Amino acid sequence: MKKQYQDEITNAIKACQKIDGINHIYFAACGGSMAFMQPAEYIINRECDIPATILPSREFTTRDPHDLGEHSVVVTCSHSGSTPETNEAAKFAKEKGALTIGIAFTPDSDLEKNSDYTLHYSWGKGTDASDLNTGVLYGFIFGLLKAVTGDAKYDKGLKALDDLEAIAERTRQQFGDTTKKWTSELKREKLIYAIGSGINLGETYSFSACWLQEMQWINSSCIDSAEYFHGPFEITDFDVPFIICEGMGVTRKMDQRAADFAKKHSDKVYVIDNADFDMHEIDDDFKEYYSQILSGVVFRQLAEGFSYERGHSLEARRYMWHLDY
Amino acid sequence: MKKQYQDEITNAIKACQKIDGINHIYFAACGGSMAFMQPAEYIINRECDIPATILPSREFTTRDPHDLGEHSVVVTCSHSGSTPETNEAAKFAKEKGALTIGIAFTPDSDLEKNSDYTLHYSWGKGTDASDLNTGVLYGFIFGLLKAVTGDAKYDKGLKALDDLEAIAERTRQQFGDTTKKWTSELKREKLIYAIGSGINLGETYSFSACWLQEMQWINSSCIDSAEYFHGPFEITDFDVPFIICEGMGVTRKMDQRAADFAKKHSDKVYVIDNADFDMHEIDDDFKEYYSQILSGVVFRQLAEGFSYERGHSLEARRYMWHLDY
Repeated sequence: MKKQYQDEITNAIKACQKIDGINHIYFAACGGSMAFMQPAEYIINRECDIPATILPSREFTTRDPHDLGEHSVVVTCSHSGSTPETNEAAKFAKEKGALTIGIAFTPDSDLEKNSDYTLHYSWGKGTDASDLNTGVLYGFIFGLLKAVTGDAKYDKGLKALDDLEAIAERTRQQFGDTTKKWTSELKREKLIYAIGSGINLGETYSFSACWLQEMQWINSSCIDSAEYFHGPFEITDFDVPFIICEGMGVTRKMDQRAADFAKKHSDKVYVIDNADFDMHEIDDDFKEYYSQILSGVVFRQLAEGFSYERGHSLEARRYMWHLDY
Repeated sequence: MKKQYQDEITNAIKACQKIDGINHIYFAACGGSMAFMQPAEYIINRECDIPATILPSREFTTRDPHDLGEHSVVVTCSHSGSTPETNEAAKFAKEKGALTIGIAFTPDSDLEKNSDYTLHYSWGKGTDASDLNTGVLYGFIFGLLKAVTGDAKYDKGLKALDDLEAIAERTRQQFGDTTKKWTSELKREKLIYAIGSGINLGETYSFSACWLQEMQWINSSCIDSAEYFHGPFEITDFDVPFIICEGMGVTRKMDQRAADFAKKHSDKVYVIDNADFDMHEIDDDFKEYYSQILSGVVFRQLAEGFSYERGHSLEARRYMWHLDY
């Protein structure tokens, strides 16, 4: 990871440590920027006693959480740093006295002005995975957990960032042909369901709402594996397509149960099996947390595959960038 | 409200008060039983400093929250009291030392055995609204808030339960013809999006996952108004149907923005405007919290309308009750 990013993380963590007892960490953002932070909420809730909540930016500001104040940390994210709802959330949190940390790609953005600390990241082809948004987020989260709990095991979580690019590239190679085949078979579909859970829920949501609905205009819904059998599974039929993210950790059984049922009753079930990811460089305690980054690598390949097969650019928009709304 | 239910609520609240500082209230259930508890998480987060989190039952147990312990309260719900995942969640929470409160219709259920306290409720036509699941839940939540904060204003929230049946029946009368018309117009649709936010999010999810997907086999997705413009809105087109729940409180502007845009670009937008609800008996501070119960009344009328227009019984299932899975 670039020294600039490491320094920004260190400064933000130091500011968190100055709070005399963090009462709540809120994550607020929109769309893909919210989805990418979902694992942070999940990891914090699993690893330490600080309550963590993730909300769409305007759900956060309209909700106006009662416990939001000087003991709170509010982490926001916007790629451009200009998303109005997320800037509102950062401003609102600052007014309430919370420590605000903005995550943004663009330097000197509004979000940077509205945040006490900013964590920048890099973007685009050729970027080392540790410098991408998730690399920086994980650097911050595992660093914060180490600072808060005093447990040296999080060094292993941080060390994994050094190998992340090699692991991501290996996954890209591994799934290249598979994702091409899948998108060729699915290219005529007007509706595709995405199923996932636990650490993968953010990436699954992102695939459904951003890659499929926004960038391919394919109807979709993100279904939590834990919820599939409690309503949604009744729409399963031989011709209903599902892309299922099967985790390699604690949610694996639950994801498998959904995948097994869907495969039995639909001819169009495609499973991204996280157990197929080769993450041998990463310590066992952290493999699950990192697996969702690789799910994201495969989801992106699927999006690129759909774009190619359907001649529908990932940059095509009907409304965004063209209209005021 | 029946005296039995009042007594059960009083006992559960007394048990909560015996905890020396509640560190977290978790709500865990599946499908409609989870959705109906979503407002509780929302209200607690808005009204007091106790962190609240709602999760599908198996997301809760697999996540194994780090702070779950003797200072925690875990509220579960299952209509039959037999949902395996929810019983697992209650057992798991009890093993961790948490105070467990189960909400169930069926007496002497497994959930009752696996919970420290049970809140029962009534069901079926002719039941007074205060004795239904949401009436009992609100009795518990406002009672708990009064106990925890010492604020007498929650008496007004409790008092509203006395008028709830009259208000619900008035809403039923008000929306009877409207919902018949809407479902007649929408009966051939293969996909219907549901949009809502804030206090209405649970009922909107329930409409999408339980009424449409499960009970009508209509494809659907629940979209948070706060997220609509950050991905999903690109699937909007003249022939894409949306049913939008427009709140009457803090999220109203956000819901309206989504509805205004959708109406501009789709010919099939149907808005349940919560500002049309006559809730004059209820104190202003509590109108928003109660509005979602009335949204639920209208959603149910829509489900019944779809069932009639499509000749598709709300009891019809392909898989549930017929297969092991």
